[in-house]
Amino acid sequence: MPDLTHFDQDGHAHMVDVSDKATTARTAVAAGWVKMASETLEIITEGRARKGDVIGIARLAGIMGAKRTSELIPLCHPLPVTKVAVELTPDPDLPGLRIEATVKTTGQTGVEMEALTAVSTAALTVYDMAKAVDKAMEIGGIHLEFKDGGKSGRYEAP
Amino acid sequence: MPDLTHFDQDGHAHMVDVSDKATTARTAVAAGWVKMASETLEIITEGRARKGDVIGIARLAGIMGAKRTSELIPLCHPLPVTKVAVELTPDPDLPGLRIEATVKTTGQTGVEMEALTAVSTAALTVYDMAKAVDKAMEIGGIHLEFKDGGKSGRYEAP
Amino acid sequence: MPDLTHFDQDGHAHMVDVSDKATTARTAVAAGWVKMASETLEIITEGRARKGDVIGIARLAGIMGAKRTSELIPLCHPLPVTKVAVELTPDPDLPGLRIEATVKTTGQTGVEMEALTAVSTAALTVYDMAKAVDKAMEIGGIHLEFKDGGKSGRYEAP
Amino acid sequence: MPDLTHFDQDGHAHMVDVSDKATTARTAVAAGWVKMASETLEIITEGRARKGDVIGIARLAGIMGAKRTSELIPLCHPLPVTKVAVELTPDPDLPGLRIEATVKTTGQTGVEMEALTAVSTAALTVYDMAKAVDKAMEIGGIHLEFKDGGKSGRYEAP
Amino acid sequence: MPDLTHFDQDGHAHMVDVSDKATTARTAVAAGWVKMASETLEIITEGRARKGDVIGIARLAGIMGAKRTSELIPLCHPLPVTKVAVELTPDPDLPGLRIEATVKTTGQTGVEMEALTAVSTAALTVYDMAKAVDKAMEIGGIHLEFKDGGKSGRYEAP
Amino acid sequence: MPDLTHFDQDGHAHMVDVSDKATTARTAVAAGWVKMASETLEIITEGRARKGDVIGIARLAGIMGAKRTSELIPLCHPLPVTKVAVELTPDPDLPGLRIEATVKTTGQTGVEMEALTAVSTAALTVYDMAKAVDKAMEIGGIHLEFKDGGKSGRYEAP
Repeated sequence: MPDLTHFDQDGHAHMVDVSDKATTARTAVAAGWVKMASETLEIITEGRARKGDVIGIARLAGIMGAKRTSELIPLCHPLPVTKVAVELTPDPDLPGLRIEATVKTTGQTGVEMEALTAVSTAALTVYDMAKAVDKAMEIGGIHLEFKDGGKSGRYEAP
Repeated sequence: MPDLTHFDQDGHAHMVDVSDKATTARTAVAAGWVKMASETLEIITEGRARKGDVIGIARLAGIMGAKRTSELIPLCHPLPVTKVAVELTPDPDLPGLRIEATVKTTGQTGVEMEALTAVSTAALTVYDMAKAVDKAMEIGGIHLEFKDGGKSGRYEAP
Repeated sequence: MPDLTHFDQDGHAHMVDVSDKATTARTAVAAGWVKMASETLEIITEGRARKGDVIGIARLAGIMGAKRTSELIPLCHPLPVTKVAVELTPDPDLPGLRIEATVKTTGQTGVEMEALTAVSTAALTVYDMAKAVDKAMEIGGIHLEFKDGGKSGRYEAP
Repeated sequence: MPDLTHFDQDGHAHMVDVSDKATTARTAVAAGWVKMASETLEIITEGRARKGDVIGIARLAGIMGAKRTSELIPLCHPLPVTKVAVELTPDPDLPGLRIEATVKTTGQTGVEMEALTAVSTAALTVYDMAKAVDKAMEIGGIHLEFKDGGKSGRYEAP
Repeated sequence: MPDLTHFDQDGHAHMVDVSDKATTARTAVAAGWVKMASETLEIITEGRARKGDVIGIARLAGIMGAKRTSELIPLCHPLPVTKVAVELTPDPDLPGLRIEATVKTTGQTGVEMEALTAVSTAALTVYDMAKAVDKAMEIGGIHLEFKDGGKSGRYEAP
Repeated sequence: MPDLTHFDQDGHAHMVDVSDKATTARTAVAAGWVKMASETLEIITEGRARKGDVIGIARLAGIMGAKRTSELIPLCHPLPVTKVAVELTPDPDLPGLRIEATVKTTGQTGVEMEALTAVSTAALTVYDMAKAVDKAMEIGGIHLEFKDGGKSGRYEAP
């Protein structure tokens, strides 16, 4: 059975030594969604023009969240991200908002956690902004869509 | 159509004025899960005894994440939480880990966002700890199960 | 000559003891501006509709900055703010953006520093967003307009 | 009309991709001031020897503030600064304190925001330390004096 | 054998529920020291006047560290401290600096950890400031001297 | 008498300019201990299996603390650590826990402060977890055991 790399041979947690890993270009894309009542989605999408920009605020929260990743995830390496983009797209069939985050760096570890944290933080912010009208929203579908760079190379979600 | 309270009459975002709200006991419970391959779940559950305590680390990350909520969620009020508990339970039928967080405070706003942030952070930490063996894990089902206290009173997920 | 309260009788810095101060409602309003080329202001104001919401992002940064005040200002007491609002208004005569922040709490110390930090952070964010087209912008006029609450009572800028 | 680089073609905020920018030596110098009553300045300058070191504390706050820049400014890239110096000089003609900050890094983006944030944080700290004797102080004149390094090259304030 | 309160009946870590504890005045005093070569102590004490204020900077770092306690200590409750004072006293017999921190709050939990964190952070800062001349310094003697307030009442170090 | 590098020729604190230092592999090892009553140590060691994992939580807090070093220590350079490991070993003769932290980076400054901060934070966390049964614990013996890399080269504690 394969081992979890975040533990040493005694089962003690550590921040893995990446000192000897190559510094390469790395990209990760993660996605997720916030499901809500149709009326909630209408309030949010209409609000972009008139009542308050939920999507713009969630996008910013996602970008800022990516920068806090190594503070939130205990064994995550700190690294200076070189790009963060977060998109939120209304999907009336969900109904709700689909979220996608792209993160890049040039470093010794990947940015999967930064992309996933960006999606999560954006989703939580949507919940916060809309919870006065809809407490039953659900956050889900959070997964890694794509990563590239580093020894383990390219990954695409099946 | 109801308004989103995080915006003023001009549609500008603000942190809502809660100065005149009563200081009351408030509780929130949120839940979610991380779905994974059965073999990944086995590695995690077996690891508790022998290879490294994924669940213990994710629990701690969730508790610490709850304390960072107002830094991550732009319009969230800071408040001193008085209790945070996070449980992760293996569910072979998912297969994966079910997560539940309970947060309490005595204050002028609720702790729904703290409970949801605890669940999210714990879930992201599980992903980080196990991603070396399973990149296809999915985080989902994050929702508010229960809240009590404050003017809007009690809410239970349907 | 009056003493600075942040120092004890030996001239050593300390965080002043406010344990015995009354917990009262407190408000502070601070203001400032970012002066820029007329063309820069046009890009920003036009952008609200079409090219990117500088003002919305700076408003959010100001609100979030207010929450970090006690981390930035060494001897500032931490306190849970109960309201933060930041407004940025284009002024073609400046030319530039005028910024005003209102902060409230119910606590043992005032929120002057929170309001001033909100204005500063919003102003710095405007600079960051527009510096690609105008590096000569100037931030100024940052002052306390109004405070109320606590032993020292009401203050209005002359 | 030129575009603001912090937005993509749809006007959505993003952290600009600097992955392909060269890693070069970068320097930025920013300046500003805190204007105050003459008597306040006397208290501060006299205090350096006897009553408490306002200038030393503001200098330290400015240095520490520079390290928090990417947390405060939403779209600012995180980067490891390699030098931060902050000077505060009494100017009886202002009357008040003149502040200048110099920041360096070797990286893919500039450190203008770090220098401006250092000046702002030092100025806010001066206000905090002296507000018990002078609430009418004003922070102003915050601007970029100089930058060098990167594709856009050298800039000197006119 | 008594139980550790930070764990529930299953041995799972949690942030203890203090919701029903009384809000009372609480004080804690902690102490410690940094032992160093006599020459290092001379450089530091002489520097106060002429070469750089190690003691002033360490004092400030200790005060600011106290405010970060609940971020650093996983199961520590966040609470708004109402007073922090840190004193560093040269002791030629150690030889080195003795450090003492006093913290107060009005809250539902004690401030022992805040006082101990203030001492630790001040000690680490002394080490950082003087390590260019003395890498063999030792930090020790960190203990709780005194606490008062709350259900467990008064404690004085034997 | 040698100078402290954290001050300029006027005795003003600054973050030393390391822009021209070589980027090299750097390692630091620090150690310390928490002394406690024998019974307290028994509760902690027994708890690993049955009542709650004090050692695992302190280890994690130490790792996370290392990542916050440059926020806590005013003049410390921020740098992305590439490895952090913290070990806590029960020592019945102390009696108490011995702590050792190893930190690595590839950068322009050393990681001594990161290793010392990891030890300190782990020790404080042990105190927090066990203080309900033993307030008289003492944290001590914190020192640098080893460092390598950079211009000043190798250091081993005597």
